[in-house]
Amino acid sequence: MSGETFVALCGGIGGAKLALGLDRVLPPGALTVIVNTGDDFEHLGLHVSPDIDTVIYTLAGLANPEAGWGLGGETWSFMAALERLGGPTWFRLGDGDLATHVERTRRLRNGDRLSDVTADLARALGVTARVLPMSDDPVRTVVETDEGPLPFQHYFVARACKPRVQAISFEGAAAARLAKPAAAALADRRLAGIIICPSNPYLSVDPLLAVPGLREATRASGAPVIAVTPLIGGKAVKGPTAKIMAELGLEASVRAIVRHYDGLIDGFVLDEADAELAGDIAVPVQVTNTLMRTLADRVALANATLAFCRTLAHRAAVEKRA
Amino acid sequence: MSGETFVALCGGIGGAKLALGLDRVLPPGALTVIVNTGDDFEHLGLHVSPDIDTVIYTLAGLANPEAGWGLGGETWSFMAALERLGGPTWFRLGDGDLATHVERTRRLRNGDRLSDVTADLARALGVTARVLPMSDDPVRTVVETDEGPLPFQHYFVARACKPRVQAISFEGAAAARLAKPAAAALADRRLAGIIICPSNPYLSVDPLLAVPGLREATRASGAPVIAVTPLIGGKAVKGPTAKIMAELGLEASVRAIVRHYDGLIDGFVLDEADAELAGDIAVPVQVTNTLMRTLADRVALANATLAFCRTLAHRAAVEKRA
Repeated sequence: MSGETFVALCGGIGGAKLALGLDRVLPPGALTVIVNTGDDFEHLGLHVSPDIDTVIYTLAGLANPEAGWGLGGETWSFMAALERLGGPTWFRLGDGDLATHVERTRRLRNGDRLSDVTADLARALGVTARVLPMSDDPVRTVVETDEGPLPFQHYFVARACKPRVQAISFEGAAAARLAKPAAAALADRRLAGIIICPSNPYLSVDPLLAVPGLREATRASGAPVIAVTPLIGGKAVKGPTAKIMAELGLEASVRAIVRHYDGLIDGFVLDEADAELAGDIAVPVQVTNTLMRTLADRVALANATLAFCRTLAHRAAVEKRA
Repeated sequence: MSGETFVALCGGIGGAKLALGLDRVLPPGALTVIVNTGDDFEHLGLHVSPDIDTVIYTLAGLANPEAGWGLGGETWSFMAALERLGGPTWFRLGDGDLATHVERTRRLRNGDRLSDVTADLARALGVTARVLPMSDDPVRTVVETDEGPLPFQHYFVARACKPRVQAISFEGAAAARLAKPAAAALADRRLAGIIICPSNPYLSVDPLLAVPGLREATRASGAPVIAVTPLIGGKAVKGPTAKIMAELGLEASVRAIVRHYDGLIDGFVLDEADAELAGDIAVPVQVTNTLMRTLADRVALANATLAFCRTLAHRAAVEKRA
């Protein structure tokens, strides 16, 4: 596979697991992870990029495996002191994690692009994959609920996904530009596949697709675009995907997700538990285990997904010749 | 002493020790500490106010007794993570301490005055004395050295006071306004004494005196102004006072310090070790132990200083009547 490159489109925890598998399987420099920044927000005057950090910490082997966010072996003196000062404590920032936010905020205030800051943070932590934000412009996911519109983190963390979702919008997306490094990765002539990671399609992947040009660049690349299912047996491994689908009036099934990605994807990776649905899916399907409990699971899913890319690319080449 | 108020003019560690003694001795609400902000600086995008924090932490009983700055029982995960990211580590910020800087910075960016933020931080930590900055405008102490001009923290922390001092200036002082709450404390009709704490006169007290109106308000109050010696036997308990005096061509003696405060002070508290210098001093002198090793030492010095205030006030009243 020497010389081939791959792009992963990724949200937080579920996506980061597959990104880790891809990173372990691909040679250094072959993987670019373009990450959702719709979850980003300003908190305590700091620019927090939850999905970017989850991806970086996961790839660096520094993530907290239990929480799915933050650093392992973290301390919490800052939160305790902030609480003593009467500051807001609903969004928990660990002491070590805080260094990421402080350093990012400092550099953004100095005029650096989020793309550069993100790449530098990843590099500093020894990550060899390129980790990039979808845009250097602010895009903010807003969840319209029965309690009114809620900024993403207020919905997700403060309200623990409890309000009923009526719609999801991406503030700033229309004016946002696809970040140059992300665009360059999608335009790379060596690109052999684009993988939509098993992140929440509505909350985590849609903000990526809402950035003008990202969907087009994905299609224009000519590389196979493959989505990996975020549902197993109609349920998300973690997070509110199925709940949101029900609230949006969608069937909580991979069928609805494949329809959601209609026109974008060339293939779909389905879990073994949903094998009987393969016939309902309009694009080529790869059935495999998608539940990633161990590093071996992540690596196996990455290998299956990359093999599926190659199969689709080969099939497209044969069809072209015919 | 009911109804009487006192103002302490204060720098960091040495001054904070006496402020603690005064706080323990005076009834709640009687003490206002006006603190040097010439040491303030922006670090990692955060507004750090070292002397204010030392005073607040000391009065709150939360200070690190060994270091003379920061919080006791501190953790250091942030610094370790920042170092891993390649960030600057010469100025050490503890995890709990960081909450103070983040909260202060957030509120200043929201447009709050440093006076209000400082008062609120002190209150949140249970401090009953009023802790106030000298000014809500930026004043930055710059140390002119044989290595060129150094911002205070670069001289003090990064270079550990090693460069030879040629002069000291206070950037922004000419345009700075005495903060309203500080001005109000100095104009209080109940004011019974102003105490210049045993802080470095050149680095920590001079920035206060450089704020237009502070010296005048001090004199205009009519209350006795008393300086407590920062030198014992020609040496500072901590810090570079004697070294700086030598570099500035001054005799490292309380005589030079009393001359420095000429026209401002009505009395001087001298250490027992320097009792033989009492005759050289042009203002009334109180000789006592000024070395504050224990809380009892701090309380005793506070009591001696307050008694001296009352003696001077009584003497002035008698002279007025005569």
